[in-house]
Amino acid sequence: MSILILSGSTRKNGNTEYLATKAVEGLPHTVVSLADKNIKPIVDMRHTEEGFSPVEDDYEEILQLILKHDVLLFATPLYWYGMSGPMKDFFDRWSQYLRDERFPFKEELKKKKAYVVITGGSDANIKGLPLIQQFNYIFEFVNMEFVDYMIGVGGKPGDVEHDYKALEKAKSWNKQLG
Amino acid sequence: MSILILSGSTRKNGNTEYLATKAVEGLPHTVVSLADKNIKPIVDMRHTEEGFSPVEDDYEEILQLILKHDVLLFATPLYWYGMSGPMKDFFDRWSQYLRDERFPFKEELKKKKAYVVITGGSDANIKGLPLIQQFNYIFEFVNMEFVDYMIGVGGKPGDVEHDYKALEKAKSWNKQLG
Amino acid sequence: MSILILSGSTRKNGNTEYLATKAVEGLPHTVVSLADKNIKPIVDMRHTEEGFSPVEDDYEEILQLILKHDVLLFATPLYWYGMSGPMKDFFDRWSQYLRDERFPFKEELKKKKAYVVITGGSDANIKGLPLIQQFNYIFEFVNMEFVDYMIGVGGKPGDVEHDYKALEKAKSWNKQLG
Amino acid sequence: MSILILSGSTRKNGNTEYLATKAVEGLPHTVVSLADKNIKPIVDMRHTEEGFSPVEDDYEEILQLILKHDVLLFATPLYWYGMSGPMKDFFDRWSQYLRDERFPFKEELKKKKAYVVITGGSDANIKGLPLIQQFNYIFEFVNMEFVDYMIGVGGKPGDVEHDYKALEKAKSWNKQLG
Repeated sequence: MSILILSGSTRKNGNTEYLATKAVEGLPHTVVSLADKNIKPIVDMRHTEEGFSPVEDDYEEILQLILKHDVLLFATPLYWYGMSGPMKDFFDRWSQYLRDERFPFKEELKKKKAYVVITGGSDANIKGLPLIQQFNYIFEFVNMEFVDYMIGVGGKPGDVEHDYKALEKAKSWNKQLG
Repeated sequence: MSILILSGSTRKNGNTEYLATKAVEGLPHTVVSLADKNIKPIVDMRHTEEGFSPVEDDYEEILQLILKHDVLLFATPLYWYGMSGPMKDFFDRWSQYLRDERFPFKEELKKKKAYVVITGGSDANIKGLPLIQQFNYIFEFVNMEFVDYMIGVGGKPGDVEHDYKALEKAKSWNKQLG
Repeated sequence: MSILILSGSTRKNGNTEYLATKAVEGLPHTVVSLADKNIKPIVDMRHTEEGFSPVEDDYEEILQLILKHDVLLFATPLYWYGMSGPMKDFFDRWSQYLRDERFPFKEELKKKKAYVVITGGSDANIKGLPLIQQFNYIFEFVNMEFVDYMIGVGGKPGDVEHDYKALEKAKSWNKQLG
Repeated sequence: MSILILSGSTRKNGNTEYLATKAVEGLPHTVVSLADKNIKPIVDMRHTEEGFSPVEDDYEEILQLILKHDVLLFATPLYWYGMSGPMKDFFDRWSQYLRDERFPFKEELKKKKAYVVITGGSDANIKGLPLIQQFNYIFEFVNMEFVDYMIGVGGKPGDVEHDYKALEKAKSWNKQLG
């Protein structure tokens, strides 16, 4: 299985990316840092006659990566009890590309397997649950299998390296993905 | 009470704004459409020595508006079971301004009253609940009173005008706010 | 539409029942107070050879009432952030009666419309949401339409009579049900 | 640390109890099967002059066990997306004993550490989350530390023995509790 990590962090080498890469250690994978890409917010044109028009940014490059991989691992720090803004802008644009006949996006999403990694403070184990529920609704909507999620504890850089329960879970994913 | 509507919609005259303005009909209020403003995503500098530095965008203009109003009415369509990307980017930047000594942001937020309007499809009544929980955690974090929320039903333009339960609720807010 | 109120309260004339009966004021309806009935907890026999056997209590009497009505209005105070114990025991036994060929329970539930009334303290508006989600999963499981829910505020006897938003909502249900 | 498992299952040797006992393997612990005890539902007397009066059942025996242990491990199968009825009746009665001056219940609960084990079908990982949120609100209310939770997959007897992720988590709890 080919693996694509979609990272929502806006910090280099953060806890979220650490956990995500632990889960795929030794396995071929690609990482896209959404914050490093130019992703414009959606402009909702669903109810207009002209519909959506192509946008000048890096979106289609990411789209091509998604189409090519079997497993999508969404990794985001908990920002204000949700996914990061760059990741949210990324998802919002799905409304556009699910309608774009140039890409078999809708059909392909159904075949993907989704994993979610969240990291946050010591209360993320509870306060991250609405975000897990949101991810679930997203994946349900596009008929993508939601295989598993994990919520790691880590605020300051390096914190999550001490969250041995999350590290154990990363190991078990590694086995499953290998 | 002075009222500020912070609108996350990316469409003009949408259902969300319709409901939000119904709630403040006849009362002085200001509307900011976040999608019309230049709001850059956060870059997480919390754990660096230099910290955050000023950003060239429209954020501080919105901040000044927040400081001046007593009631913040957050209005967002349900995009992928969350708030819209532009509104998420708006919240993410709170992490920066809560640390910016040029503004009494932290102290002032505690005195505000928050209302939330969400609109979405017929399942928003349920699938919008994780977003309500997220808003609650946000407001708890900054010690702002979460007075009430409503979830209106409306996908296509004009739909929500037929959601009489939401319109009734807007009326009761109007009474409370007046 | 014939209406059955299934009440989970363990107190007479409580806030929950007040709201529920407001919603059906002037409309023919039946009220069952689950706490007044003898409802034994489930004993899970799903995985045994003999399966479930008939239980000596009042359950089948309630079952007959359910079968006869079109609208089921579940009304429960928020006890420890969930439905009351007597109501939970009531739902648990569904596992038995969905398998009991003497009753067309499974087929009939699909035709019912469900309403939910919860009352609780001032934080019930948020802390009652997991219970709303639970009710939603229950109704989804049996393919019953979940029409609407309301969360009233009321701890002490009579409190909810001052929750005019809940009373407004009860009125709008009354119109819908009439 | 002395450990008390409060089991909500109504089946012998079920998946939930299997996971819970794995977590405490090799450590001294006590198991109470709530369904085997006579626990009467609460009768809400909070707002009456006379208040609660003693109830003839096994409750005080369980109360004494709680007072004597440091760690409370709540283990329940997911019944209709919530805790089992016998466990719900158990919690409802807390309203009575938090007011009963014969027991230092309120003070002692603050010193306990809570763990939660849930098992359910393959969707329990998501549909069990409202129950986790409910447990969290319960523990918050009584100021008890909510250390961790796990959601195992297992419907039929023995299923959970194949949920190696849950078993790994049980191991990590075992280390933490030992």
